[in-house]
Formats: sequence, C-alpha cells, structure tokens
Amino acid sequence: MTKITLDESEIPRRWYNVVPDLPSPPPPPLHPGTLAPVGPEDLAPLFPMELIRQEVTGESYVAIPDDVIDVYRLWRPTPLYRAHRLEKALNTPARIYYKYEGVSPAGSHKPNTAVPQAYYNAAEGTKRLTTETGAGQWGSALAFACAQYGLGCEVWMVRASYDQKPHRRTLMETWGAVVHASPSRATNAGAKVLAGYPDSPGSLGIAISEAVEAAAGGADTRYALGSVLNHVLMHQTVIGEEALKQFAAADERPPDLIVGCTGGGSNFAGLFLPFLREKLADRANPVIRAVEPAACPSFTRGRYAYDFGDTAGLTPLLKMHTLGHDFIPDPVHAGGLRYHGMSPLLSHMYELGLFEAVAKQQRECFGAAVTFARAEGILPAPEPSHAIAAVIEEAKRCAESGEQKVLLTALCGHGHFDMSAYERYLSGEMEDFELPQDRIDTAVAGLPQVG
Amino acid sequence: MTKITLDESEIPRRWYNVVPDLPSPPPPPLHPGTLAPVGPEDLAPLFPMELIRQEVTGESYVAIPDDVIDVYRLWRPTPLYRAHRLEKALNTPARIYYKYEGVSPAGSHKPNTAVPQAYYNAAEGTKRLTTETGAGQWGSALAFACAQYGLGCEVWMVRASYDQKPHRRTLMETWGAVVHASPSRATNAGAKVLAGYPDSPGSLGIAISEAVEAAAGGADTRYALGSVLNHVLMHQTVIGEEALKQFAAADERPPDLIVGCTGGGSNFAGLFLPFLREKLADRANPVIRAVEPAACPSFTRGRYAYDFGDTAGLTPLLKMHTLGHDFIPDPVHAGGLRYHGMSPLLSHMYELGLFEAVAKQQRECFGAAVTFARAEGILPAPEPSHAIAAVIEEAKRCAESGEQKVLLTALCGHGHFDMSAYERYLSGEMEDFELPQDRIDTAVAGLPQVG
Repeated sequence: MTKITLDESEIPRRWYNVVPDLPSPPPPPLHPGTLAPVGPEDLAPLFPMELIRQEVTGESYVAIPDDVIDVYRLWRPTPLYRAHRLEKALNTPARIYYKYEGVSPAGSHKPNTAVPQAYYNAAEGTKRLTTETGAGQWGSALAFACAQYGLGCEVWMVRASYDQKPHRRTLMETWGAVVHASPSRATNAGAKVLAGYPDSPGSLGIAISEAVEAAAGGADTRYALGSVLNHVLMHQTVIGEEALKQFAAADERPPDLIVGCTGGGSNFAGLFLPFLREKLADRANPVIRAVEPAACPSFTRGRYAYDFGDTAGLTPLLKMHTLGHDFIPDPVHAGGLRYHGMSPLLSHMYELGLFEAVAKQQRECFGAAVTFARAEGILPAPEPSHAIAAVIEEAKRCAESGEQKVLLTALCGHGHFDMSAYERYLSGEMEDFELPQDRIDTAVAGLPQVG
Repeated sequence: MTKITLDESEIPRRWYNVVPDLPSPPPPPLHPGTLAPVGPEDLAPLFPMELIRQEVTGESYVAIPDDVIDVYRLWRPTPLYRAHRLEKALNTPARIYYKYEGVSPAGSHKPNTAVPQAYYNAAEGTKRLTTETGAGQWGSALAFACAQYGLGCEVWMVRASYDQKPHRRTLMETWGAVVHASPSRATNAGAKVLAGYPDSPGSLGIAISEAVEAAAGGADTRYALGSVLNHVLMHQTVIGEEALKQFAAADERPPDLIVGCTGGGSNFAGLFLPFLREKLADRANPVIRAVEPAACPSFTRGRYAYDFGDTAGLTPLLKMHTLGHDFIPDPVHAGGLRYHGMSPLLSHMYELGLFEAVAKQQRECFGAAVTFARAEGILPAPEPSHAIAAVIEEAKRCAESGEQKVLLTALCGHGHFDMSAYERYLSGEMEDFELPQDRIDTAVAGLPQVG
C-alpha cells in the first residue's frame, strides 16, 4: 500500500500525556517577579480552566470531547504514506513512511490543538480569542477553529509577513478573523512601539505582547498559543496515536528511526510521544531525532535555562533550551521554526537523553523538498523540509550499508503558501546562514538570573 | 460519518465511456480544410495512438494500467464528505455531499487525466510533453504527471497569469517543468504576435498555438489537453465511480441532484457520467445540473455549432456549444471556466436533454464559497464555487419546502492559489459582469461555415 488510511471511527478518543511516564517531571514555570511556580490563578486571565488543568495534569490520558471529534473528522484520521516512489528515486532499501498533516483545512498540524482550544474556550463562555502569528500558519489554524465554534478571532500578524504574505492573511479573513499588522495602534504595546519606530517591521515578541494585552483587557476574551506548552503538545499526540494504528494496519514493524522538525516542538512531539510510550514499555525501540534550522539551533547550541517565552519578557519564566529571548534568528524561510526557545517538556526530555537533535541549513532542506515533491507529488512546507532532509540523509546511508531500516517522519504541512521560498531556491537565490558563536553568547548573556 | 473514505484497493480499475450508452453518438470532429471527419493519422503528430484510440472507442470500459494506478494511489480514492456542518449553517433538511478532488498533489481533479496522458506518452516513446495553461491548474497537473514518468514538460502560460500568478509557475518549476510566458519567442506563432504587439498579455488561444507548434516540431514531443476531449472526460470518471461506491458504503440512497461547474466539462462529466449510467439503467434518477459563469455561458446562451477549439483556428472543427472562437470572456476569477466552447460530448448530451444548465455571477459564487469555508473548513477554488452556489441555492429551497433531498457536488479543487480573488471579494472590490447579447451575436457571426 502507498496510503494507509483509517476509518473515521479510529480517530483517537484521548490524548496522551507523557509526563507520568517520565522518570522526573519537567521543572515548573516560574513567576518572573516572585520566582515561585506559576499557579492556575496566574494563568486564568489568559486561558480557560480546562486548558490550565491539562497543562499540569498527572493523568496519562485526557478524553477528547465529542464536539472536538466532530471537527477533527473534517480531516482526521490523516493518511500515513509509504514513500515507495521516493525510495525508488533514492535507490534505498530503507522503508520510508510519512504521516501527512497537510490535509487539514489550514494545511498543517496546527488545527489539532486550535480546535480543542477554541472548543474549551467556547464551553467556558469565551467570546473572542486573540493570538499572534508569524508566517500565518498558527493564525489561520485558530481562525478556522474559531469559525467552527462561533468565536471571534483576532490575530496580530508580524508586519513583515503581513505585507509580504497577503494570502495567509486573506485565508484568516475568509474564515472570519480580524487580522492586525503588528505593531498596531489597537494596543498600548503596539502604539508604544510605533511611537518610537513608526516603520517597525514587527516581531513575534511584539505580536505576543499585543495579543496578550488584548486578551487580558476583555472579560470574555482569552489568548491561545500554538506550540511550546504541555497541553498543546498533548493535543498533537493524535498524530502519533493514529500512526501507531497505521503501522499495525500495514503489518509493518515499529520504526527504527522517527524524525521531526522542531520550532516550539509540537508537531515533533505529536508524532513521537506515543511511540516513546511504546519504547518505555519495551514494545519498540526507535531512535528519535529532532531537526532544527542551523539558523535557530536551540537544542544543539542553546542553553538549558529559565528564560522568557517572548522577547518583551511578559510571560512566565520557562526552563528550556534557549538562545536567549533577545536572539533574533536570521530570516530563514521556515518561519515556524524561528523561535528562540523550545517546549519546556521537550527540553526536559532532551536532557534525560530520550531523543537526539541535529541542525540543518535551509538549502539542503529545500533540495530535499524538491526531490520529495518530484517523487511523491506533495510539496512540503519549509518547516517539514528539515525532517525530510534528515530522512533522505538516513535513507542514503541505508543505500550504502544495505540496511532495511524503517523510517518515519511527520510531514506537518504543505507549502502552498510558501511558493516564494521555492522560487528563491529554484532561482539559486536562497542563502544559508552561518551562526557565529558570539551571537549566541551575547544573547544568552541576557538570560534572567534565577536562583 | 462526515468523511467517507475507501481503501486503496477500491480505486477503480477501469474508466467508463458513456458513448455506447447514448441513443446516438456525438458528431465527429471535422478537418477544417476538407470538412471530412478527422482520422487517427491527423492526430498522430500530437497524441499517442492509445489516446487517439480511446478518443473514438466504442467500448464501454477501458482498463486503467497498473502503472497509472500506482500514481493514482498517491491521492486516490479521494474522500466523499457529508457536509453536516454546512447543512447546520443553512438549517436545511437536505443532505449535502461533496466529492473532494483537492487532495491531489496539484490540488484539483486535473491529475486524473494528466497521469494517464503522461503514462501513455512515455510508453510510446515520447520524451517531452507540451501544453498551454491559463491560471496554471492544468499546467501544474501535467508538470506533476511528467515528473512521475520522467518526461520533460514545457508549458506555455498566458502572460497575464504568468506575471500575476507567479506561485503556480513556481509550482510547475518545482516539479521540473519549463514554463514560458506566452506569447514567447520560442515559437513562430509567439514571435509573430510579439512582432506586432510586443506587450501582448497573451490568451489561451495563442498559448495553444505555441504548444501545438512546439509539439508538431519535435519527433519525440507531443501535446496534451486538459479538458474538452472524450478521452479526457473518460479519465475523470474515476471520480463518479468512487462516489457511487461511497454512497453505497454510507448506506445512502442515490442523489436527487448532481451539480458540477463547467468550463471544458471534464470535472462535471467525471462526477456525473457513472451516475448517468445508473440512471439510464433505471437504478437511479438524479437531476443533473451544470453551472457555468454568467460571463462565459456556452450552454445557456451559446450556439450549438461547429467551431474551432482555439482562437487562432488551428484545431479541428468541433460540434459544440460555443460563444464563438473570437469571444473573449470578461476577466472573472474562475480562469478554468473562461473557455468559449464546451466538450463536444457534453454538448451532444445537453442537446439530448440528459442534463440541464444554469449560469451564475461570480459574487454569488464567492459568497457561497465563504459560507462553505467557514462551515466545512476547505477553501474552494473559484471554479467549484459555482457548483457550491447552486447547491446552497437548492439546499435553501429544501429548507423552505422541507424536502430531504440528497445533493451531490464535485469540489474539484482548493483555492490556495486563488487567494487574491478571495481578497477582492472580501474587500468588496469584486465585480459581476453583465454580458450583452450583441457581444455574443458578434462572436457567433464569426463561426466557420460548415455544410
């Protein structure tokens, strides 16, 4: 089989929480003023109670509400593909599988968490959600999800992307969202930036400040985050749970290698956490590998330390692999991977040695994406092209060694809104960025002092 | 169920040819010089013999080669959706189904024929295929298909689209195609136009001339067409064959109404022909309805007459509903429906009263597409938004009458490369076009004299 599909009845009915299965829990977020662990009351202005509960739950599983399943089935279960044609193109004895999340309406894995976040907010009386978005993948997922539950959606989109990527903005507007270029005059945070720098191209950090301010200011308005947090990673485990069933349905042995790209960590976690559960129970033994951009290498070159989640320093302090909240990554095309930090849960697990990480330059990734597109048809987004590059690298190793390894990766989205990046690659204009150590040293020197 | 999927093993193994089931065959194409029916030898410079054979076959079924199935299964079977959430939004007792072809790598139904066309060409020794494309949907489908069989692909893309829609061009290039802006200096036909009009924005007619000239000039080069011809419509019947199985799997009775949009006719035909077979055998009784743009109403306001398939008058004469080969449709956003003629086979069947046709203005269609996107998530291409508008119209009628009709439509592609059209609609800048009768009268006055 090329495409291993599951019946709608096989959509997972519960999300998997890895925390109870770990030898130790991840260090808690800290209040930046008191340095005490953050409690539910600190988060209540921003998130509904059920999501706060899920963020800290000790249960191994959380039931997925029927009303969430009802939206999931617009695109779930997603297909698992055996990449026969790519294997042939690479002349490799490896068996390559990819789990494709680009079939969602928003074209990525992001709706897996946008939908439950919108649902729990609607259930607790929220009327409007705010968020920030860079290239627009998360913003469009939330706009879609809000349309499903009749919630208003306001998105602060980094000005540079707002101007350069009008199509993602139109996609959000088609689903009914209001999209602001950030910095905007709609918030004090934005107005303050514009007063000093009227032509500011914006940043994710500024956009977060605006979205958080707008949420904190409205009684029936809350805020939604698309990666990094525990509950977001947990929602994404539907990916790996389905993949496990699909491997069984295909009568294939568990993968020898699982590869995913990491920005905040949610798509990678969504795929591998259920397989890790099997590994911890001695039912499988995959090598698990994160792939990050060489321009933003939080795992491979960052510090494991408490840091702010945003540039402006408004969020709780998170213990994570970070390049420093002042770090500004070079403008690689994988906008979804340009984040200075990393999921605290994944950071903790990396320290425990539960997976490994590598960094890739973007030209190798786009080269891999073009090879993939010509063989398999699907055009990958710039983010998963990092995972594909690592899979192709491994498949070529197998071609040399003769090993019949089973490789699995997450193709977390399509590249239909990223064609200008492909155009730059094909025209030979795309550049790689070397990241000098002193830029990292300077940024991590600005880490907050904790304890 | 929301999404009715089929196992890979249920991909149809043969295409359905409706011609033997009709009370009379469609009138043959004529050689424009001799006015005699066109024979295989006239077509051999442009098409491989197997496609010429399929164009005129009297068999009811043609077997699909295994090597074609092997590519089909990258995305087939495609899902049939029950539009529960749209029904709820419309508060209608109608049961709405849509067959979604946007899951193909090129994002539309076009690869259903691009793949076998590339396959038969490769099998008969063709090294390179040429074609024309307007907005780029057909060109990208052929580029994808050629990549699958190692064929070169050269696409003449109408200059206006080439400049305005660079992303479709990049998509074709990613799959390895060479894309020319038409008119180009690469052909005599193009050079001639440019000599008289250096800034020509091009037209589909000019692009066809260029692609045909380039194919005729090369011993191992042939030409491919994305709609209109019998073999193209036949390849699309995989859509309706799957839908029939999916209706059975969903335990649903046959549809009361089948709706599709028509430009050249291939996606509409692909959906309804297998259901028509059932109707002719008294196993179903659907009303079948074509929806065309009011700006290009070949069925509803065109003449049924012999005309050229292209603007320059290079093709055989085809008996079809036509607005005249000189007719230039107003610039509606559904580029795939802006064709002066219509499939001769469908034209013949329309004369036989086997289906009906209506015309729609584009603002109604985009309004329907936005309603659809907010309910079902998927963003329709401008072309199928015409079919969606007609389905919503019928569903609203059912809401008034209380009828529990079963409605089926073809959602033949997504709109990810058409966001600028959505932007115009949402900003209130989209216009409708009234088509005065004298423009049609003038154009049909230029029809060739036959018999």
